[in-house]
Amino acid sequence: MGKVYAGASTSIDGYISGPDQSGFDQLFRWHTTGDVEVPAPTGAHTFKLTPGSAAYLSAYIEGAGALVVGRKLYDHTNGWGGQHPLGVHTVVLTHRPLENTEHFSFVSGGIEEAVAVAQKHAADKTVGLNGGEIARQAIDAGLVDEIWLDLVPVVLGGGTPFFAPGKRFALEGPLSVIEGVGVTHLRYKVNYGASEAE
Amino acid sequence: MGKVYAGASTSIDGYISGPDQSGFDQLFRWHTTGDVEVPAPTGAHTFKLTPGSAAYLSAYIEGAGALVVGRKLYDHTNGWGGQHPLGVHTVVLTHRPLENTEHFSFVSGGIEEAVAVAQKHAADKTVGLNGGEIARQAIDAGLVDEIWLDLVPVVLGGGTPFFAPGKRFALEGPLSVIEGVGVTHLRYKVNYGASEAE
Repeated sequence: MGKVYAGASTSIDGYISGPDQSGFDQLFRWHTTGDVEVPAPTGAHTFKLTPGSAAYLSAYIEGAGALVVGRKLYDHTNGWGGQHPLGVHTVVLTHRPLENTEHFSFVSGGIEEAVAVAQKHAADKTVGLNGGEIARQAIDAGLVDEIWLDLVPVVLGGGTPFFAPGKRFALEGPLSVIEGVGVTHLRYKVNYGASEAE
Repeated sequence: MGKVYAGASTSIDGYISGPDQSGFDQLFRWHTTGDVEVPAPTGAHTFKLTPGSAAYLSAYIEGAGALVVGRKLYDHTNGWGGQHPLGVHTVVLTHRPLENTEHFSFVSGGIEEAVAVAQKHAADKTVGLNGGEIARQAIDAGLVDEIWLDLVPVVLGGGTPFFAPGKRFALEGPLSVIEGVGVTHLRYKVNYGASEAE
């Protein structure tokens, strides 16, 4: 089975959004600051990236198998108009499941079930966990193989942290470091064993 | 004048120490996990580093001109037995100044004075701000040119954050990315102007 990763664009003080839902302009600026065009697989939009970030994102798109998202994100985007821009099957964890479609599954049995359903769709490709709350639940449940950080040079000073306060665990790596402009792409392996031993 | 930098080993969730002063073993593990010996300039101790970190730390030592530290750190280390291991003049910001010595100056006029005194000693070399509180005061006062992070693959989940909650500012870069093992050395330029403009 493919890897399960939790990924996010984070500030260097660890936030995925700033106070009062601010900071997205800065956190996602790297999506639009380069000259290399990388279209989202569905054609919904086109990233404009520096060469390093373009290589990184292209490999990411190539490897993507399925996503797990929360209901809030699904509703906020109106179900991305019918399909996630990444073009992969998307599992929505929700207490109020809708009817499954070609591109979406709705799961109410908890994060384990959501990840299991996503893994079936992903086969040997990766399962991505989108949204801080989904990532936290999966990390807590021991389901995450890797953490993928797009580390952005801004200090937000507050907001929503990517990692849940009160949870401590070790990582290994970085497995890879890719330099962008206004972003550094870092991948780490989650080491649940080391975490328990300490 | 040389650059003023604030630097720290931080967890990827942004802490310089974990809950109840824990986490130092993990945050400073990279000081002892390699085969390349880099002695501290005073000979007080020897780092054992991977090649990447050794090159990074050697350049850091070579460029170091002076330090600013807080009184708590000075007292905690008993004045490093007479001289900071980095072998540079060290300015101690304190409400209870001691008599100046060859290796230490005691300053009670605030962070601006402390940095100014350190810059005189450093000439065209760097002034380093050691300790979270000193770094925060200097960042707030607009005195810091660069942020140097030794980013360590551990999630501490709480403790003392490197950056003061409630403060938001932009950075530029990274200016450099050096891969170690169990650490990534990142340098950023502080962009106070951009911070104010947003």
